[in-house]
Amino acid sequence: MGSEVGFTSLGLVAWLCCLSLGPVEGGKVLVIPADGSHWLSMKILVKELNRRGHDVLVLVPENSLLIHDSASYKTETYQVSFTSGELDEMMSELKTGLFLKPPKITDLFVNVQRFVNFTSIQLKACEDLLHNQPLMRRLRGVGFDTVLTDPFVPCGSIVARVFSIPVVYFLRGLPCELDLKANQCPTPPSYVPVSYSGNTNIMTFPQRVKNVLMSVTELYTCRLLFGHYDQMVSRYLGEDITYKELLGDGAIWLLRYDFAFEWPRPLLPNMVLIGGINCAKGAPLPADLEEFVDGSGEDGFIVLTLGSMVPSMPEEKARRFFDAFRQIPQRVVWRHAGVPPEGVPTNVRLMPWIPQNDLLAHPKAKVFITHGGTHGIYEGICNAVPMLIFPLFGDQGDNVHRLVTRGVAESLGIYDVTTEKLLAALNKIIHDKSYKERIAALSQIHLDRPVPPLELAVFWTEFVMRHKGAAHLKVAAHDLNWIQYHSLDVIGIIVLTLLTVLWVTLKCCLFCVRKCYRKGTAKRKSE
Amino acid sequence: MGSEVGFTSLGLVAWLCCLSLGPVEGGKVLVIPADGSHWLSMKILVKELNRRGHDVLVLVPENSLLIHDSASYKTETYQVSFTSGELDEMMSELKTGLFLKPPKITDLFVNVQRFVNFTSIQLKACEDLLHNQPLMRRLRGVGFDTVLTDPFVPCGSIVARVFSIPVVYFLRGLPCELDLKANQCPTPPSYVPVSYSGNTNIMTFPQRVKNVLMSVTELYTCRLLFGHYDQMVSRYLGEDITYKELLGDGAIWLLRYDFAFEWPRPLLPNMVLIGGINCAKGAPLPADLEEFVDGSGEDGFIVLTLGSMVPSMPEEKARRFFDAFRQIPQRVVWRHAGVPPEGVPTNVRLMPWIPQNDLLAHPKAKVFITHGGTHGIYEGICNAVPMLIFPLFGDQGDNVHRLVTRGVAESLGIYDVTTEKLLAALNKIIHDKSYKERIAALSQIHLDRPVPPLELAVFWTEFVMRHKGAAHLKVAAHDLNWIQYHSLDVIGIIVLTLLTVLWVTLKCCLFCVRKCYRKGTAKRKSE
Repeated sequence: MGSEVGFTSLGLVAWLCCLSLGPVEGGKVLVIPADGSHWLSMKILVKELNRRGHDVLVLVPENSLLIHDSASYKTETYQVSFTSGELDEMMSELKTGLFLKPPKITDLFVNVQRFVNFTSIQLKACEDLLHNQPLMRRLRGVGFDTVLTDPFVPCGSIVARVFSIPVVYFLRGLPCELDLKANQCPTPPSYVPVSYSGNTNIMTFPQRVKNVLMSVTELYTCRLLFGHYDQMVSRYLGEDITYKELLGDGAIWLLRYDFAFEWPRPLLPNMVLIGGINCAKGAPLPADLEEFVDGSGEDGFIVLTLGSMVPSMPEEKARRFFDAFRQIPQRVVWRHAGVPPEGVPTNVRLMPWIPQNDLLAHPKAKVFITHGGTHGIYEGICNAVPMLIFPLFGDQGDNVHRLVTRGVAESLGIYDVTTEKLLAALNKIIHDKSYKERIAALSQIHLDRPVPPLELAVFWTEFVMRHKGAAHLKVAAHDLNWIQYHSLDVIGIIVLTLLTVLWVTLKCCLFCVRKCYRKGTAKRKSE
Repeated sequence: MGSEVGFTSLGLVAWLCCLSLGPVEGGKVLVIPADGSHWLSMKILVKELNRRGHDVLVLVPENSLLIHDSASYKTETYQVSFTSGELDEMMSELKTGLFLKPPKITDLFVNVQRFVNFTSIQLKACEDLLHNQPLMRRLRGVGFDTVLTDPFVPCGSIVARVFSIPVVYFLRGLPCELDLKANQCPTPPSYVPVSYSGNTNIMTFPQRVKNVLMSVTELYTCRLLFGHYDQMVSRYLGEDITYKELLGDGAIWLLRYDFAFEWPRPLLPNMVLIGGINCAKGAPLPADLEEFVDGSGEDGFIVLTLGSMVPSMPEEKARRFFDAFRQIPQRVVWRHAGVPPEGVPTNVRLMPWIPQNDLLAHPKAKVFITHGGTHGIYEGICNAVPMLIFPLFGDQGDNVHRLVTRGVAESLGIYDVTTEKLLAALNKIIHDKSYKERIAALSQIHLDRPVPPLELAVFWTEFVMRHKGAAHLKVAAHDLNWIQYHSLDVIGIIVLTLLTVLWVTLKCCLFCVRKCYRKGTAKRKSE
């Protein structure tokens, strides 16, 4: 892991000598990751914890997309009830139609279905782990200080609850904002845009109506998305508990964003922003690659990748890209695994793997063509490279929206991209200097934080180990139900009391008036 | 300024070499402080900014309680329309009855009156500054990068607005939580206790009712307390604006608390917690004082001070303290200015000024008898010394509540303290080990933060100078009115639409039913 780049110095050297509390030495960390691209970010923290002398154990399903053995941490592989073929099939299903179908009104359901498919196999692995009694017994015996997990899968939370040890979450955010809901973080829909609403933090009245309606709909989406999590959690823990409730156990939430990227919103004390944790200092490129990109001269070069989950592009689609690249003076480094498409232009180099961050850190990098995953986006922000984004799935559409609104990126649909559209977008980003200026400003704000995100993530993981949790940072809202949280019962009783007082007063007045009136009448009669 | 003590190392040295953004060199900071004890905390940051090469100018009213010239920063003294005699008179009025009167139901009004009296003279100084045209012209010409101010007085906000420069606030919190309201920070009354409610973060139903009622009352209290601020602000800025609205300009809020002391609550991204900023590393004591406290042997010693604003104690009251101190083996270091009361016991040393933090940092310090100002409280927490607190005014009663609830302090009323009560409380704190254990745990949590509070305060002040504010951390709620913020207009329109749809549907159904019924009747008739 390269050292962090760019974060502002605090001149902390002066007080390093007089510390009474040092970092935990040799803490025991059980890591239960989610498979897929999520792991790539989490791995950075895992390696760093290991490097700092902690005893880190990563649980690896025997068939996995990206979680593998490593010299940088210990692993324990467990058997799963699906084959690698089934895993590949799930992945190819996930990608079906990505390059062809335009987004429709039913996209929400497509996304829900994709999420359920993608997580189902991970839940299967999770069940396999939890029911592996010998392994679970062995793990319990180790006496871990904390569980570090991605709450995209529920295993980590369950194990932490069963072992009675504090849990640290590492994530970008969960669909339908389950993470915020579970942690009881206030999210006023009047200025915090709901995911996929297309809103920003400043909304017109119709946008606010849409935002409120979508935030209500989210409650339903949550049930669709996490219904099978709820069942599994209840089944395993043997109590009637939802996944949201279980997530509430989280001691610290390490969140992979910051406000150079997200719109400002309320936070809770146990939410730690570590956006850009993957942003390492650019290392020198391999000699041949350096020669290639450096040969681009004044025009510079473009980096193209669609993320770890989509390593290649259909030939017909790739041809449109080739046709566009032939018409520009920039060179292109394209991450493309598998059989390379035919007719690769001379200014394009296809590579099965690219040192993405090092390329983006190169001074001649002009544009980053990406799918809009936060890992890549933060490398773009960190290295101040404007982006052309083809959002594919998950949170990517929403991520793109943030960057396009900030004027540091352009977005195109991969399903209907044409050579002309591509050319127009690239020329705009390269020749309109405002993209570069704005991303440079955004990059400066992003980098200018008191503590580099990786240090912060390590600090809070170690804090949880030192203090067996972080109870003093947890709001008391977890003990309240929805009605209590919003003080509806209190408002109810106050209104009722006021109405009663008003009614009694009114009755008394009427009674007095009547009494007086009767007396008056009786007096007049007797007179 | 001693270097910070105890904060955990992050091992940041490794990346100090590869930073692209250094701290601002020679930024220009205009400091507009509030007089009184508040200044003692703020001065620490001011000195540090000056030490780091910033051009710091402190505006000093010619008659002031605690703001004076210093070698550690530049000052500019301005004329005020009150004499030092009037200032002293105000102070003695403030203290009237402090030692004698028990708290009553009307305390709220007493406190309001005290606040209005205390701030009136500061507002006068503020007006004098703002109407000092030559000075204001000169200041504007300097081209300051930021205004650092305590929003307890409105001068800083007004000057920042008039000069169009970003403002950094430095405070413990404003009465009626005006700071949180102005910064649009969500404060759910279901788990965030209102000041002076006597509630904690975990409340029973009646406590929640009280909390909601008090949070509504706060709106009225705010008007009582800050009505004269509103007038002044509107008058000077020549527009219809409240102080709360003006406060919304704040780029960064440096808040002198943390969650070792406060109950966990939502925060906004521009709120920076710097509780314990005054907690310097304990320096060696003067030889005679060291000899006195060290001579206390195993029994240790007690530190007694009622804060910078209350330097002495009436003789009759002091006698009760003396009587108690005669009966304990501990020695006592008592900060007492003015004429010393008669009959000082041999184990008590009265001193017009004491090195409070250095005394508390001494391993033989057993109890800290204090008035409960946050400055002292944080020195108590930081040095892990349990406290006996005599709250006098302002936020002190509320501060005490936090510590007593945490089991690290006892509280007594100064107006009805007796030798017996004092003895009982002291013996309890000294001999019941749980006080020391709990404050040691609290101290550890307090000290275990990624960045020492002084560093953090410097960082964010410099950040504001580097980026001309911190717009990316400001929530968009400032542009919304109360109805919009709570989405009441949106809810209204949704409910109205639903009712209309329901009504139309009902009408249609009724119409159809009637039509069918009539047809049926007509048919039957014709048959």
